[in-house]
Amino acid sequence: MDGPDYKGLIFLVTRVLFEHGMNISRNDEYVSPSGYFFMRTEFEGEADPDVLLSALYRELPQGIRLRMNPKKKKQIVLMVTKEHHCLGELLLRYAYNELDADILAVISNYQVLAPLVAKFDIPFHHVPVDPKDKTPAFDEVTRLVNEQQADCIVLARYMQILPASLCEEYAGRVINIHHSFLPSFVGARPYHQAATRGVKLIGATCHYVTEELDAGPIIEQDVVRISHRDNVEDMVRLGKDVEKMVLSRGLRYHLEDRVVVHDNKTVVFA
Amino acid sequence: MDGPDYKGLIFLVTRVLFEHGMNISRNDEYVSPSGYFFMRTEFEGEADPDVLLSALYRELPQGIRLRMNPKKKKQIVLMVTKEHHCLGELLLRYAYNELDADILAVISNYQVLAPLVAKFDIPFHHVPVDPKDKTPAFDEVTRLVNEQQADCIVLARYMQILPASLCEEYAGRVINIHHSFLPSFVGARPYHQAATRGVKLIGATCHYVTEELDAGPIIEQDVVRISHRDNVEDMVRLGKDVEKMVLSRGLRYHLEDRVVVHDNKTVVFA
Amino acid sequence: MDGPDYKGLIFLVTRVLFEHGMNISRNDEYVSPSGYFFMRTEFEGEADPDVLLSALYRELPQGIRLRMNPKKKKQIVLMVTKEHHCLGELLLRYAYNELDADILAVISNYQVLAPLVAKFDIPFHHVPVDPKDKTPAFDEVTRLVNEQQADCIVLARYMQILPASLCEEYAGRVINIHHSFLPSFVGARPYHQAATRGVKLIGATCHYVTEELDAGPIIEQDVVRISHRDNVEDMVRLGKDVEKMVLSRGLRYHLEDRVVVHDNKTVVFA
Amino acid sequence: MDGPDYKGLIFLVTRVLFEHGMNISRNDEYVSPSGYFFMRTEFEGEADPDVLLSALYRELPQGIRLRMNPKKKKQIVLMVTKEHHCLGELLLRYAYNELDADILAVISNYQVLAPLVAKFDIPFHHVPVDPKDKTPAFDEVTRLVNEQQADCIVLARYMQILPASLCEEYAGRVINIHHSFLPSFVGARPYHQAATRGVKLIGATCHYVTEELDAGPIIEQDVVRISHRDNVEDMVRLGKDVEKMVLSRGLRYHLEDRVVVHDNKTVVFA
Repeated sequence: MDGPDYKGLIFLVTRVLFEHGMNISRNDEYVSPSGYFFMRTEFEGEADPDVLLSALYRELPQGIRLRMNPKKKKQIVLMVTKEHHCLGELLLRYAYNELDADILAVISNYQVLAPLVAKFDIPFHHVPVDPKDKTPAFDEVTRLVNEQQADCIVLARYMQILPASLCEEYAGRVINIHHSFLPSFVGARPYHQAATRGVKLIGATCHYVTEELDAGPIIEQDVVRISHRDNVEDMVRLGKDVEKMVLSRGLRYHLEDRVVVHDNKTVVFA
Repeated sequence: MDGPDYKGLIFLVTRVLFEHGMNISRNDEYVSPSGYFFMRTEFEGEADPDVLLSALYRELPQGIRLRMNPKKKKQIVLMVTKEHHCLGELLLRYAYNELDADILAVISNYQVLAPLVAKFDIPFHHVPVDPKDKTPAFDEVTRLVNEQQADCIVLARYMQILPASLCEEYAGRVINIHHSFLPSFVGARPYHQAATRGVKLIGATCHYVTEELDAGPIIEQDVVRISHRDNVEDMVRLGKDVEKMVLSRGLRYHLEDRVVVHDNKTVVFA
Repeated sequence: MDGPDYKGLIFLVTRVLFEHGMNISRNDEYVSPSGYFFMRTEFEGEADPDVLLSALYRELPQGIRLRMNPKKKKQIVLMVTKEHHCLGELLLRYAYNELDADILAVISNYQVLAPLVAKFDIPFHHVPVDPKDKTPAFDEVTRLVNEQQADCIVLARYMQILPASLCEEYAGRVINIHHSFLPSFVGARPYHQAATRGVKLIGATCHYVTEELDAGPIIEQDVVRISHRDNVEDMVRLGKDVEKMVLSRGLRYHLEDRVVVHDNKTVVFA
Repeated sequence: MDGPDYKGLIFLVTRVLFEHGMNISRNDEYVSPSGYFFMRTEFEGEADPDVLLSALYRELPQGIRLRMNPKKKKQIVLMVTKEHHCLGELLLRYAYNELDADILAVISNYQVLAPLVAKFDIPFHHVPVDPKDKTPAFDEVTRLVNEQQADCIVLARYMQILPASLCEEYAGRVINIHHSFLPSFVGARPYHQAATRGVKLIGATCHYVTEELDAGPIIEQDVVRISHRDNVEDMVRLGKDVEKMVLSRGLRYHLEDRVVVHDNKTVVFA
C-alpha cells in the first residue's frame, strides 16, 4: 500500500488483519521525506482477499492505494537480441526453480539465440525488425505478448526501443537491463562511452521502461572495478557478469512484489 | 522489543501507541526462523515513557522484553593502545557532531596517543598494564569507567583483553574492532596470519565483547581486496581504512539503538 | 618464470626475446618480500619454443624455473555432485566461447545433473561413491581423467574429497570452489556455520586442491553482504552467485596461465 | 616513460639500467590498444640521474617521454571550503606520516575550518571569493601557491572553479574530489541530483582538474550502496566516507608517481 502519511496507518492495517485472523510474517514500512507512506505486509491465514480489501478500504483514509498480491508465479516473456548471457542466466534459474516466474516465451529480432532457448523447451519467436518500418514488427510483438497474457516483459538485452503504446500498456511491468551505471552513458554503446571517459568502475542498471530512453525508475544497480588495462572487449566481458546479476536481482524484487514505484523512483523492500 | 512470536504483536504495540497519540515515524520488525520476534519502533509525541511502558506490558504476552530509549546522546569512553586511525576517526566525527555520543575520556596503556587526544580537548588517562600483574591496571580502568558513568566502552584498537568482570558489568555495551574478517584470524597479528594464508581479501569486524576472545556478537564487517603485491605493511595500511569505517558504522548502529543481540548474533535495523 | 631474485633478470630475459625477434605485448613481474622473483611475459613472433627456452636457460642464473605456454586451449574435466549453478555457468561460457578451454567430460557421483550436461552435448560419467569403500570409485575417476588426458580438473561443487594420489598427480591443476571465505568455515556446511556465527558477509574461495582439506593456495575470493534477515536458505541462494563468479574468475586466471604458486600462495598476474 | 610502442623498449631500458648497476625492484608496463607504450620502473642504485636520463634518451627511439622522479616527498597545498571530512582525513594521515607529502598550507574561501587546521600547526590562509569579481581572490590564491613552490594542489572539497590560468600552470598537478560517480551528476549538488534520479549507489571521483568542469582525467572512483531510505542528508553522510577514501587513494597514486595521463585518461600503476 502507499499514499499520503496519516497517524495510525500501521495500527489500522494490522487491526484489520488481526481481526480477520491473519498472521503477519513480515512487515516493512517507509515514510518519505515528503510525507508519503509505503507499506508492504506479508501475512498468512484463511480469508477472502476481496473481503479483506473491502475491510481495509473502509478503515483507511482516502488516497491510500492498496494492492493484494496472492503468492502466485508471474508469467513472463523475455525479449532478446544477440547476447546470450542474461538470457542464459534466466533460463538456468528457471530450469532449476530459482526464478519465481514461468517463462512463457522468448521473442527476438534475430535467430541467433534460438538454439539456446530450444535447449530449455521454451517457445522462441523470431520477429525481425525492419529499420525502415518498425511498426509491423512491434504489432507482432504486441500481439504475441497479449496472446500470452504475460504479467511482465523482461528486456534481457533487447537492443530495440519498445513502442510507446506497449510501454504504456505494460507500465510498471517492463523491466530492462542497461549496460551502464545510469544516468551515465545513456543510449548506445555505453562501454565505448566508458572507455572514452576513462572511468574506473563500470556498471549495470535494472529499471522499469518508460517512454524516455533509459530514464525509468531504477530497481537495482551494481558496478565492477576496471583498470586502464581493460579495453572495450574486457569491459564487455566483465560487464556481462554484472548485467546478469543485476537483472536477476532486480527481477527477483519485482517478481516477489517488493518494488513500489513513486515519483519515478522505487521503494524496494528487499 | 523482542521475545517469542505471537499473532498480533505489531497490532498490539501500534494500538497502544495510537491510543496514546503517538505517531510512528519508522517501524522495523523481524521474525527469526526459530520464531523469535524483534521490533524497533521510532515514534514521536507527548507521553510519559513510564505510562507507555506500563500500557505496553499490560497488553503484550509474557516473555516480551521492551526497551524504551529516549533520543539522547550516549556517553562513551574510548580505549586505545598505539594506533591512531580509529581514534582519530572518532575524534573528528565527534568534533563535527557526526557521532551521536559524547566522548567522556580516552584511556590508554601507552602515552603515545595523548597529543592527538589533547588536540580535541578530551581527558586522556594513561593506565599502563604490567604484563606480570594486570589486576591493578584493570581495577583502575574499571574505576575510571564507573566514575564517568559511561553508557558504552569502545575499544578502538585496545590491544589488551578486558577482565571478565568488566565485560560482564558492561555486557552488550563494550564494542571492539578486530582487524580481521572474523571468524578468520582470531587473536594476535591477524594481518600476519592473512599474509601466511594468502587470502585475496582482508577485513575488519566490529563486535560486542564477551568473555571468549573475538567471539562476541558481530555488528558489522567489511573487506578490501588485496593482491600478492600487498605485503604485511600494505595490509596494515589498507586494513586501517576498513577498520575505522567498520568501527564507525557499527558504533553508529549501537548508538542509535539499532542493534538487538539474541543468541550471540545481532539483529541490526540499519 | 620464478626463482630467487638477481640483479638484471628482466634485462636478461628481454634481451634473449629481443635477439630472437620477439615482440613483448605484456610483461608483469613481482619480487616478494623474501626476495623471490616472478615474471610473466606475453610475447609474439616466429621462433622455436625449444630454441628460446634453451637460450633463456643459458642466460639465466641457476634456480630459475621457466615455463613456456603456447596460446592453446586447455582440456578440462568437470566434477560435480548435485548443485547446478557452477556447472551451468561453465557450460554456458563454454557454449559461447567464453571459456578458454575445452570441456572434455563431466564426472558426477550422482545422476541428477546428467540432463543439464546433455543439453550441451558433453559426455557425462556417473561414478557413484560408496561411502564404505571409496577406492573403486576413485580408481574409476582416475582412469577417466587419465583417459581424457585432461590438463586440469575443476571441482565445480564436487562434495567428495579427492584421494591423495590424484591430488598429487594433478598437483597445481585441480581447482576447487569452496562455499566460504576461507579460512573461515572449512569443511562441511559452511553456510550453516556462517549462520551460527552471525557473520555479516558470506563468501566463496577458488583454490588449488592439496592434500589438506580446503587449505590449498587461494586463487580468488569474493563476498556478498547479508543481514539478519538472511537465513541459511537465503545464504545458499546468495552464495551461489558468488561461488559461480569466483570460480569463473579463478579458473580464467588458471586457464590463461596467470597464476604462479609459491609457498602455498598464489601470484596472480590478473 | 610513455610514447609510441616499439619492439624492444623494455629490453633497451633495462639494459641501460643494468649497465649502470641499477637494481629494478618493480617494473610495470602497459601497451594501449592504440599502440601507445607506458612503463614505470622502480630501481635502486648509485647513479647520477642526469647521466642515466641521457643514456636512456640515447638508446630510445624518438617520441618517448621519460620522467625520473627521485623518492622525495612532494610539497602540497590544500584548498577547502566548509566541509571538514576530506581535510581532516588528510591532516591525520599527514600527522602520522601516512601521507607521502608535506602539507605546506591550507587555503580556504571561508574561516570555518581554521580551527581544525590550527590543531595540526599548518598555516591557514583565508581568501574570501567575491562572487561579483573573483579575480582578486584568485590572484591571491595564485600568489600563495607560487610562493609556496607547491608541487601539487589538492582541492579537498573546494567549492569554487579555479581560473583557467592556474589550471594550466599546474596542469596534471591539481587534484579534485568530486562527490559523484562521474560522469553522472556533474556540477553542483550531485547528491540532490542523485536523490532525484533515484540511483541505488552513490559515489565519488578523484580526478585531475582541467578547464572543463569535472571532465578531467579520472584517477580513482568508488561507490557505496544506498536504499530508498537514504534521503539527501543520509547520502551526504555516507558520501563523505567514500569521498575521503577515494581522495586518499587517488592522491597516494599521484604522490607516489604511479599515474600517467594520456588522452584525457589515466594509466595507474597501483
